[in-house]
Amino acid sequence: ATHWILTLVCEDRPGIVHAVSGAIVEADGNITESQQFSSGDTGKFFMRLQVESAATRERFEQALAPVTERYGMTWQLDVVGRPLRTLVLVSKAAHCLNDLAFRQRAGQLAIEVPLVLSNHDVLAGLAEFYGLPFEHRPVTDAESKAAFERRVLEVVEQHDVELVVLARYMQILSPELCDALAGRIINIHHSFLPGFKGANPYRQAHARGVKLIGATAHFVTSDLDEGPIIEQNVVRVDHSKPPEELVAIGQDVESRTLTQAVRWFSEDRVLLDGARTIIFQ
Amino acid sequence: ATHWILTLVCEDRPGIVHAVSGAIVEADGNITESQQFSSGDTGKFFMRLQVESAATRERFEQALAPVTERYGMTWQLDVVGRPLRTLVLVSKAAHCLNDLAFRQRAGQLAIEVPLVLSNHDVLAGLAEFYGLPFEHRPVTDAESKAAFERRVLEVVEQHDVELVVLARYMQILSPELCDALAGRIINIHHSFLPGFKGANPYRQAHARGVKLIGATAHFVTSDLDEGPIIEQNVVRVDHSKPPEELVAIGQDVESRTLTQAVRWFSEDRVLLDGARTIIFQ
Amino acid sequence: ATHWILTLVCEDRPGIVHAVSGAIVEADGNITESQQFSSGDTGKFFMRLQVESAATRERFEQALAPVTERYGMTWQLDVVGRPLRTLVLVSKAAHCLNDLAFRQRAGQLAIEVPLVLSNHDVLAGLAEFYGLPFEHRPVTDAESKAAFERRVLEVVEQHDVELVVLARYMQILSPELCDALAGRIINIHHSFLPGFKGANPYRQAHARGVKLIGATAHFVTSDLDEGPIIEQNVVRVDHSKPPEELVAIGQDVESRTLTQAVRWFSEDRVLLDGARTIIFQ
Amino acid sequence: ATHWILTLVCEDRPGIVHAVSGAIVEADGNITESQQFSSGDTGKFFMRLQVESAATRERFEQALAPVTERYGMTWQLDVVGRPLRTLVLVSKAAHCLNDLAFRQRAGQLAIEVPLVLSNHDVLAGLAEFYGLPFEHRPVTDAESKAAFERRVLEVVEQHDVELVVLARYMQILSPELCDALAGRIINIHHSFLPGFKGANPYRQAHARGVKLIGATAHFVTSDLDEGPIIEQNVVRVDHSKPPEELVAIGQDVESRTLTQAVRWFSEDRVLLDGARTIIFQ
Repeated sequence: ATHWILTLVCEDRPGIVHAVSGAIVEADGNITESQQFSSGDTGKFFMRLQVESAATRERFEQALAPVTERYGMTWQLDVVGRPLRTLVLVSKAAHCLNDLAFRQRAGQLAIEVPLVLSNHDVLAGLAEFYGLPFEHRPVTDAESKAAFERRVLEVVEQHDVELVVLARYMQILSPELCDALAGRIINIHHSFLPGFKGANPYRQAHARGVKLIGATAHFVTSDLDEGPIIEQNVVRVDHSKPPEELVAIGQDVESRTLTQAVRWFSEDRVLLDGARTIIFQ
Repeated sequence: ATHWILTLVCEDRPGIVHAVSGAIVEADGNITESQQFSSGDTGKFFMRLQVESAATRERFEQALAPVTERYGMTWQLDVVGRPLRTLVLVSKAAHCLNDLAFRQRAGQLAIEVPLVLSNHDVLAGLAEFYGLPFEHRPVTDAESKAAFERRVLEVVEQHDVELVVLARYMQILSPELCDALAGRIINIHHSFLPGFKGANPYRQAHARGVKLIGATAHFVTSDLDEGPIIEQNVVRVDHSKPPEELVAIGQDVESRTLTQAVRWFSEDRVLLDGARTIIFQ
Repeated sequence: ATHWILTLVCEDRPGIVHAVSGAIVEADGNITESQQFSSGDTGKFFMRLQVESAATRERFEQALAPVTERYGMTWQLDVVGRPLRTLVLVSKAAHCLNDLAFRQRAGQLAIEVPLVLSNHDVLAGLAEFYGLPFEHRPVTDAESKAAFERRVLEVVEQHDVELVVLARYMQILSPELCDALAGRIINIHHSFLPGFKGANPYRQAHARGVKLIGATAHFVTSDLDEGPIIEQNVVRVDHSKPPEELVAIGQDVESRTLTQAVRWFSEDRVLLDGARTIIFQ
Repeated sequence: ATHWILTLVCEDRPGIVHAVSGAIVEADGNITESQQFSSGDTGKFFMRLQVESAATRERFEQALAPVTERYGMTWQLDVVGRPLRTLVLVSKAAHCLNDLAFRQRAGQLAIEVPLVLSNHDVLAGLAEFYGLPFEHRPVTDAESKAAFERRVLEVVEQHDVELVVLARYMQILSPELCDALAGRIINIHHSFLPGFKGANPYRQAHARGVKLIGATAHFVTSDLDEGPIIEQNVVRVDHSKPPEELVAIGQDVESRTLTQAVRWFSEDRVLLDGARTIIFQ
């Protein structure tokens, strides 16, 4: 028997669960996990099911077809544990790539990485240690930047990439690339209470004496740092921490938060409801 | 339309969700929240649904009857927000009663308290401030203890009490009372890593230099402090805290943890799976 | 013997600790707790000492005088556990006042409250239960607002108030009042990642799907919500929480955070270093 | 100028701070960080100072000598940031070694590792990637175990090792080795509320439905898992996590907690007060 993940989104109305569960019965499936949410904001219905069934994908999809059509559903049928094809973009900072790669190898993160693409060569050794293909393409001007972005799209197409992860990739993406990858590109950035604009936020956070520093993993939209939030964490600090120690603490919480977001995405737990995410933990 | 909560437990097998959702469709219901869990340990299936429906209770139950019978379900149909009839037992410590009463009055905890019963009179004023009936029955020997426990059962019957809360009630209950109230009596106790046996655990925790102190809310069984765990929290401490400050910190985490457990119980989110709880948050 | 708290601030230079500890030896004192911090940002030296000594205040101050003069110190000599004279301003929300009053009565917060002053009468009963004098002065226009602020200053002077706490007092203070109370007036406000401007931030936080909501206790300056931060906390939330539940969670973290800030202030643990606080926990 | 760390322990009595700070003035030192603690339990006084001074070690020690003698002090003079000579013992689990090595290389952990010694060869590749010498010595019987322990002591002597870290080394050490390394050997183990005895604690924690799992880093004594606690952390879990997922979560908190304990030790922030530790954070 296969363990399937079925996610679906449609307008909310009565009878959906009955219809979907009927199709699953038809495919000799047993629901082992189920989560749903009706959004009062958008009127949408969200569902994630794990189903144990010996049916083939074809037969499962045949059973589902009448239901997904009747309700106008957006849906996806996946297999539990299938590695997500993930392109990782990095610059010089190692902490996020190290955490993703270590957990992938430890069997705690179901991704496969056809390429680590970087505008610097600093992390080539780290990628090599973990057996990940690494490619260095300098970005120095508008032309090389456009070339880098074309390469991103090429890799996405060539390897049928499902998720692009900005693991501290320090270049701003063009709106075109953001749009092309909408809903399948995740970024991590530091977060503070209150927020700080401009350069060197850790220095500002130190000057202002913040007591918590954190990180936010979010989908990338052309409005940078403002896409739907996937995960957030904070860590307590105090006045005695110099800016460079805040940076180290911030890196920890960044890598932990990004890996969690990627894990949830790889398990089809992240659904979009307008400007926000539904996370089915 | 009424907002219903339906909880059910039965042996796990295919088709349950389809059957239950069919009964809900029949009662013109719309599922607004749904959680389920299949326990690999006990082979049981657990489900909690919130359903919006204009049907009467009678009609809803009629629609459910064939399904609950076919699957041999233990089930309960409740109304969202209905105050839970809750008997609170206290001794001298105010913190847990204060937190329960304050949140009940603030509309954050759907309980109604027909009686606060105590073996001391210290908390009479606090109960009065919150408008809760208070009764003082000293427990000084075996006889007065038995009388106290008979009074507990009398109040439970008289007011059809659904939950008994030991809000720092400092007497050990008889196995008979524990059995009579099995699954509907909750206790709070402090928790440490590692655990400490015997008197004055805060003093021991201080002597041992523990870095975390916590609290566990659990169902009461005749095996004291060993019933199924509902909720746990910890707080960080350090070597400089004297035992009395550990006590104050411990009280905070105790009251917070107990109130959370009572809230989940009042919302039918706590189900029993052998020695452990399923919490549908 | 008395337990003293000595706090001092001066320009950082070698020999301060030796000089101060010499004065303490002269006053037959024993240092039981000591914390210091040299600020790289402002070049200032901060110190907080607890000293056990049978000396009178006069003799202690005589021993200190040559040192505080030589180093140009700002200093304060207090007695451990002395209740801080605290004026509490409230409007309609009970949670912060309830937490302050409950902990004060439980002996966990060394404050005495000569008055709870409010622009509404809603919390009169709560204040009465805890035995705190309560005064209601409506604020409906510029004139009544000015009268309210004059009353604040009058109470501060009359009772030699050391701290003014805005326990969800929902009026913006005039810059004049902020200046008059600089360094001895604390506010609590909700905090989000990212921050939200404008009305109804909990609704915005819900719409944006934030995963953490928090609170910040800070000194009030004429630049509202931007004074030096004293304490911050966050709590985890998810997409399923409606705005009103976020409000309840937010109130919890607000009251907890405000009480902590007041406690630290009452124990002379909060010192100002330019735009930020030094907290000697 | 050198940044020195001075730690000292002695019987508590008046005048210590004055005497110590006098010696520092004599060595033209400036105190940049200072923490002290008087233990009510043992009557001992603990102090940690960071001092900026251009004095040679010889001159500094000469200035200190009269003071340390007069007060019968145990003391240590170290240089800020000097890498701690650390022997790491491992078996098969990679997570703790990976975290230590990654942070050491990232400049966030001041240790140098003359050897990673293991009773298995699984982690040879990981050690190699980080450029750490690795030695494999199987432990299969009493004789090979004794040989392993002799090798530990040999390495300790040969490289003047200051700390031995059991980074999930899965052999019980002999009481003789524990005694020989008393106060300079740290272990990490999982922690639960309540505690579980016997094999497979994660399975027991799952069966019991614990809501928090954690880890404790502690000094090793011959009474295994009962030495003075250095650091503890917990993570929230729920009923849906199978035992293998609890293991993964547990490994995270283990590696994080162990690294923190090693960092504090390397910065001379961990002092022993009988059965407990004083941590000067």
